[in-house]
Amino acid sequence: MKAVRKGRFFIIIIMEDTSKKSVLAMEGYAVRTKGISERVQKITVSAIKEMMMLGLSYPDAVSFGQGTPSFRTPAHIRGRVKKELDENPHIGKYSPMSGYKIFRDAAAKALLEKRGISANSDREIYITAGAMEAISTAVLTVVNPGDEVLVTSPCFPSHIEQITLAGGIPVFVPLIEEEGWKLDTDGFKKAITKKTKAMIISNPSNPGGAVFPKEDQLKLAEFALAHGSIVITDEPYDFLVYDNREFYSLTNVPDLKNQRISCFSLSKEYAMTGFRIGYVYAEEGFVNQMLKVHDAIAVCASGLSQYAGLEALMGPQECVDEFREEFAKRRDLICSYFDEISDLFSYQKPQGAYYIFPKVIPSVESYEFCIRLLKEARVVLVPGDAFGPTGKGHVRFSFACSQEDISEGMQRIIKWWKENK
Amino acid sequence: MKAVRKGRFFIIIIMEDTSKKSVLAMEGYAVRTKGISERVQKITVSAIKEMMMLGLSYPDAVSFGQGTPSFRTPAHIRGRVKKELDENPHIGKYSPMSGYKIFRDAAAKALLEKRGISANSDREIYITAGAMEAISTAVLTVVNPGDEVLVTSPCFPSHIEQITLAGGIPVFVPLIEEEGWKLDTDGFKKAITKKTKAMIISNPSNPGGAVFPKEDQLKLAEFALAHGSIVITDEPYDFLVYDNREFYSLTNVPDLKNQRISCFSLSKEYAMTGFRIGYVYAEEGFVNQMLKVHDAIAVCASGLSQYAGLEALMGPQECVDEFREEFAKRRDLICSYFDEISDLFSYQKPQGAYYIFPKVIPSVESYEFCIRLLKEARVVLVPGDAFGPTGKGHVRFSFACSQEDISEGMQRIIKWWKENK
Repeated sequence: MKAVRKGRFFIIIIMEDTSKKSVLAMEGYAVRTKGISERVQKITVSAIKEMMMLGLSYPDAVSFGQGTPSFRTPAHIRGRVKKELDENPHIGKYSPMSGYKIFRDAAAKALLEKRGISANSDREIYITAGAMEAISTAVLTVVNPGDEVLVTSPCFPSHIEQITLAGGIPVFVPLIEEEGWKLDTDGFKKAITKKTKAMIISNPSNPGGAVFPKEDQLKLAEFALAHGSIVITDEPYDFLVYDNREFYSLTNVPDLKNQRISCFSLSKEYAMTGFRIGYVYAEEGFVNQMLKVHDAIAVCASGLSQYAGLEALMGPQECVDEFREEFAKRRDLICSYFDEISDLFSYQKPQGAYYIFPKVIPSVESYEFCIRLLKEARVVLVPGDAFGPTGKGHVRFSFACSQEDISEGMQRIIKWWKENK
Repeated sequence: MKAVRKGRFFIIIIMEDTSKKSVLAMEGYAVRTKGISERVQKITVSAIKEMMMLGLSYPDAVSFGQGTPSFRTPAHIRGRVKKELDENPHIGKYSPMSGYKIFRDAAAKALLEKRGISANSDREIYITAGAMEAISTAVLTVVNPGDEVLVTSPCFPSHIEQITLAGGIPVFVPLIEEEGWKLDTDGFKKAITKKTKAMIISNPSNPGGAVFPKEDQLKLAEFALAHGSIVITDEPYDFLVYDNREFYSLTNVPDLKNQRISCFSLSKEYAMTGFRIGYVYAEEGFVNQMLKVHDAIAVCASGLSQYAGLEALMGPQECVDEFREEFAKRRDLICSYFDEISDLFSYQKPQGAYYIFPKVIPSVESYEFCIRLLKEARVVLVPGDAFGPTGKGHVRFSFACSQEDISEGMQRIIKWWKENK
C-alpha cells in the first residue's frame, strides 16, 4: 500500500495484494494464487466478516463484530412471508428482474414520505439482494480500471473491496477524528482530480458514527457537480440518528439527479439483515445499465425477501421507534464502559448508526490487537486498519448486540486490560 | 462482433457494445453511455430477461421465455420456511458468509449420494444466492481482462455476459446441431490457445437440450488438464435427463479437482427459482478466493432460502420424480406441435433440460422474429442470436410452462404461421 500525504488527505494506491492484510491468511487459511485473477488477488474478505469467521472457532466469544441487530425480525414481517408462502402461487418463482412492481411502488412511497423524493417506480427504482449488491453493481457500472473513487477514511471496508474489484483506485479522504469524525470538505475538494470518477458517501457513517451536516454534504454536491463525479450513496443507517440531530442525504439534492446512484437497505432498520433485501434509486439510464450487472450476478432478489421488504415498508413502523430507542440506550451503555478504561481507548461519541471507532491509546497493530483480544478476552472486534489509513491503531465495536452482551464483552475487555496493561 | 472461422469453430471477439443487440434498446428503452464503464457498455441484460421484460407489456402473452418451472414450490419446503420463521430466533439475521453449516453439510451429503463425490463441507463448499452468483463469482475470480473462456455455441447467454463483465473474451465452440447439439470435442481441442483461461460447461445443455456423453466430456477434461485450463461447471439441469440416458459431469473427474469450480442450483430441481439459492463445490483455495467476491456482492445468501434449500436436499424427493415425468410429457407435447409446422421450424429433440432450440426455416433475424411473434402472436420466445453465433436464425422455447400453456402458445404460433407464410 502506498500512501501519499497531500495536505490533510492521503491518496492510497493499493499496489499489490501482499499489502492487504487478511486475518484469515494470518491464521493459516489456504491462499491460492494459481489461476486467480489479479482483481481478486488484490482484495480480501472484509475484515468484519473475517473476524466473524475466526470468531466461530470461539463459541463463547462476545461479538462486537458484524453489525447485526440483536432483535428478532418483527412478527408482522415474518407473518407476511408465511401468508405469501401459503396463498401466493407464484411465491417460489423468479420475480421480474427489477423486482415486484408492488415492492417498487412501496419503495417509491417510502422515498416520498420519508425523504420527500418523487421517484418513478417503474423506471428509476429496482430491487436488489441487499445494498451490498446495489453498491457493487453501481461501482462495476461506473468505474473503469484506473478510475479514482473518493471515500472517507475511515469508511466501510467493503467499499474498498468493491472499488478494487472493479479495477478502481480508492482515494481516502480522512475524516476529522477530534471533531467527531467530521467531513473534511476541503480535503474532498483537494482530492478531486481528472481521474475522479465517483465518490461513495455513507451517512450516518460507518464506522465513525458521524452524522454529516447538510451544509457539508452540499459542499460535496457542489464539487461533484463541478467535476461531473458520480455520487453513490449507501444509506443503511438513515433511520438511526441520535440526540435529535438533523438527517440529510445527498439523495435530496435535485441537481445531482443525473449523476447519482442511491442505495438503500432494509436490513438494519427492520432487523432483517438475513433477508438480503434493498433497492436502488437512480436516473433511468443508470438503472437500465445497472440491471445488466444485476442480471448477471443475481437475476433477481429473493421473492420471499421482497414480500418481507414490502411488509416492512408498508406495515406498522413502531418497531423502528423501539429499535432506535434501544440503540440509543446501548450507545450510552457502551460509552459508560469506555469511560472506565480511558487509558486503553479514546472515543468519539456516535451521533448515528450503531458503531463506535475508538483509538487504542497504547500503540498497537490493529489486526494483531483484535486477534489477541479474541484469543485472550474472547471478544470479537474489527481491526481499524481495514477501514482505511485513518483507521490505523483503531478498532470498531458494533453495539447492535444486546445490553447484556455489551456488559459482558466490555467487562471482559476491562478485566483483560487490568491484567495486561 | 468479429467472427473468425477456423476450421469447425468460430472465435468471436466482442469488439464494441454497438455490436451487441438489445431487445429493450430496439424497443426504445433509455440507453445511457455517459459515466458508464466500458465493461458494462459491452454487455446486455440477457435476452431471456429482456424478452420477459418486454413480455410484461403484453399480459395475455404465453411465455416460452424464462425457464421457470410452472410448479408450485413443494409444500414441505414452504412449510420448513414457515417453521423457521416461527421458531428460529436467528432466522432474520445474517448467516455466516459461507452459509449455514447445516446446509453446507446437506450439500455435501447430496454430492455424495447423487454423485459419489466426497467433499469437505467446511472448506470446499459455500452457499450462494443462486448458481448465477456462483458463476459470475467464479469468472470474476479466475478471468483477467483479455483471457479467453471457451463456451459452447449455443450456450447460456448469461455466461457470455459474465465473461465479458470480467473483461474476458468468450470463445465459442459450435455444437453439432444435426447430431442433437453434440459436443465437438475436436473443436474444443483446436480452440484452446495460450490465452485460454477457462471453459464453462453446462450439461444437460441450455438451450440445445443435449446430454453430453461421458467419453466426450472426458476428452474436454483431458484438454483442460493438458493446458491447465480451469473448468467451471453450471449444473442446474443435472436432475433432468430423458429416455434413461446416462448423466455424467466433469465434477466427477478426480484429476480436475485442483482446476475446477462446480456450480449447483436448486432452482429447477425443486421448483424454487425465486428463492435464489445454490452452492459451489471447489478446491479450498478457490473457495477462499471466491468468498472475497461473494462477500463484496452478496454478503451471504438469504437465510430463509438456505433453510428452504436444506429442506429441499434433505426432505422427500418424490417431487423431483413427479417434475421429471411431467417435463417428459411436456417435451413430447411441444415436439408434436413442432411436427405440425415442419415448414417453419426444424428441431433436435431434447435429451435433457427443458429447452428446445429450433432453427427457423425461413431466413429470419432472430431478434426481429421474436419481437414480431410477441406482438402478432402473443408468445414470448428468446432470440437465438443471444446464445452465440450458432444461434443465428434459431429461437429458444422453454417448455417448463404447463401443458395448457404449451398447447395455447403453439396453437397461436401455428395460426400465425398459416396467416403469414
